Amino acid sequence: MLPVVVVHGGAGHIPKERSERSTEGVCSAARAGYIILQGGGSSMDAVVGAVTELENNPNFNAGCGSVLNVKGDVEMDAIVMDGKSLGSGAVSAVRNIANPIQLARLVMDKTSHVCLTAEGAGQFARSMGVPEVPQESLITEYSRMRWKKNLEPEANPVEFQMGKMGTVGAVAVDSEGNVACATSTGGILNKMEGRVGDTPCVGCGGYADNSSGAVSTTGHGEAIMKVILARLILFHMEQGQSVEAASDLGLAYMKSRVDGLGGVVTVDPQGHWAARFSSGQMAWAAAQKDTLHYGLYTGEHFTQSTEMLLID
Amino acid sequence: MLPVVVVHGGAGHIPKERSERSTEGVCSAARAGYIILQGGGSSMDAVVGAVTELENNPNFNAGCGSVLNVKGDVEMDAIVMDGKSLGSGAVSAVRNIANPIQLARLVMDKTSHVCLTAEGAGQFARSMGVPEVPQESLITEYSRMRWKKNLEPEANPVEFQMGKMGTVGAVAVDSEGNVACATSTGGILNKMEGRVGDTPCVGCGGYADNSSGAVSTTGHGEAIMKVILARLILFHMEQGQSVEAASDLGLAYMKSRVDGLGGVVTVDPQGHWAARFSSGQMAWAAAQKDTLHYGLYTGEHFTQSTEMLLID
Repeated sequence: MLPVVVVHGGAGHIPKERSERSTEGVCSAARAGYIILQGGGSSMDAVVGAVTELENNPNFNAGCGSVLNVKGDVEMDAIVMDGKSLGSGAVSAVRNIANPIQLARLVMDKTSHVCLTAEGAGQFARSMGVPEVPQESLITEYSRMRWKKNLEPEANPVEFQMGKMGTVGAVAVDSEGNVACATSTGGILNKMEGRVGDTPCVGCGGYADNSSGAVSTTGHGEAIMKVILARLILFHMEQGQSVEAASDLGLAYMKSRVDGLGGVVTVDPQGHWAARFSSGQMAWAAAQKDTLHYGLYTGEHFTQSTEMLLID
Repeated sequence: MLPVVVVHGGAGHIPKERSERSTEGVCSAARAGYIILQGGGSSMDAVVGAVTELENNPNFNAGCGSVLNVKGDVEMDAIVMDGKSLGSGAVSAVRNIANPIQLARLVMDKTSHVCLTAEGAGQFARSMGVPEVPQESLITEYSRMRWKKNLEPEANPVEFQMGKMGTVGAVAVDSEGNVACATSTGGILNKMEGRVGDTPCVGCGGYADNSSGAVSTTGHGEAIMKVILARLILFHMEQGQSVEAASDLGLAYMKSRVDGLGGVVTVDPQGHWAARFSSGQMAWAAAQKDTLHYGLYTGEHFTQSTEMLLID
């Protein structure tokens, strides 16, 4: 069954006019990750490649397209984890870089630490030669419009809560059976300066362990943190649950215990995979055995040959 | 058996000339937490009270006495968690405040977020009227001496690794059976600027859940994060293990899987408690049924009446 890559573009409410671009984006990212795996790349290479593409896509809440904090600034969180070593790298509240996921990988590869935050993360980026980009290059018209709208006194708190829509993530298994995860986000709309969500916290935004599998999460960050959703799902898999049942058990517990909605992509080391969500929608796509699978609403599952996509 | 409070003053190697002050410090903090519980305070009040006392004690690596980062600055991490709601509050890489644990509690109580980092955490502190303190007031002669020594070319990397000695934490169960945890640290000696360790990450530095118990951790932060030690121990308790066996299973797994040493204090909602460590030493103390328990080396377990202590 190997290799496989599964990506998500965030759980939440996706406005109709943006649904097509969301689906196209996750399909393109899954294809990018799959090409890396087919070329002999590792699962870590594949998840970082897929998430980089989603960060570069302005339709998602990560990298370019990130939501703005209460001051109108972009502060981003990202994490990677390698299932072989349990090695992890993360950045939180980082500014002025295009691809936080690549900086998170550098934290894992080039330091003895797991997480660097804020200005310290920026200093590390500069020391690694990561180009500094102007904040304006990360801000879209859409994210600025939503930020302004949410500052208005009559702002709709429900829409506000859905602000995390568009966190991106990926999990993969390579041909050697190594699993990896990557997750990247701009956080939640109009968050306080310095707010750190679930994404850069090991076990919350993602977890990867060759002995059980890998998960990348999205949804209401504070709820995900309270139940440590990614690790919880892998505990269920260690107890013998399938990728699908374990994902559903984790999401159901988050809903019943802390009233939180979200979504996950999950793999086990054999290449079984699932894309599950308790929110209304989650853009997701998976590539395996030259077939692309994708969906957006509950129960949707379309398939297509990856070769057709390559011709696109 | 209720109520109970258990505190630790950090796992690692404690120099002989500092061992007495470490023991005195944890005993005094356990007594402070116990007085709060006896007065009808909640487990959250007790753990924050105990950890505040340890932060104010210059012999521990938290608050005043924090280790210095590579630039000679103090950046502190802290977390609290409430087992009833799974509510949590944390700060990372925060500067110029005396009691990060109290700021972490304010994040939980006064915001919709779980974690604030760096300058954003500082802004929140100012908005809450938390006094800003000069960095010098947090730095001891001892921590400056160790910082300088570790910058020397012939610095001993083993001593460097032991730099986290002195992270402080507490767990408690109050008379209503609510559990809570609190952990606070200056991190590891000569860390990069912006390094975030295990302490402020939910499930790593601590976890509390009324349905299973509470854990506060100390030790090699990056290893604790890889295995999400506090949550792991509570999973073992959910599977029927005792506080002691679950703590040992978690620590043994961390040693075998990622070669990491550490220590924990653990309680279950019935008031059973344990203080366990795989490192050479961990200063710990517990107060329950008017008895103070304490120790520093493996196998040590002294007891004393808490009433005697009150006369001290």
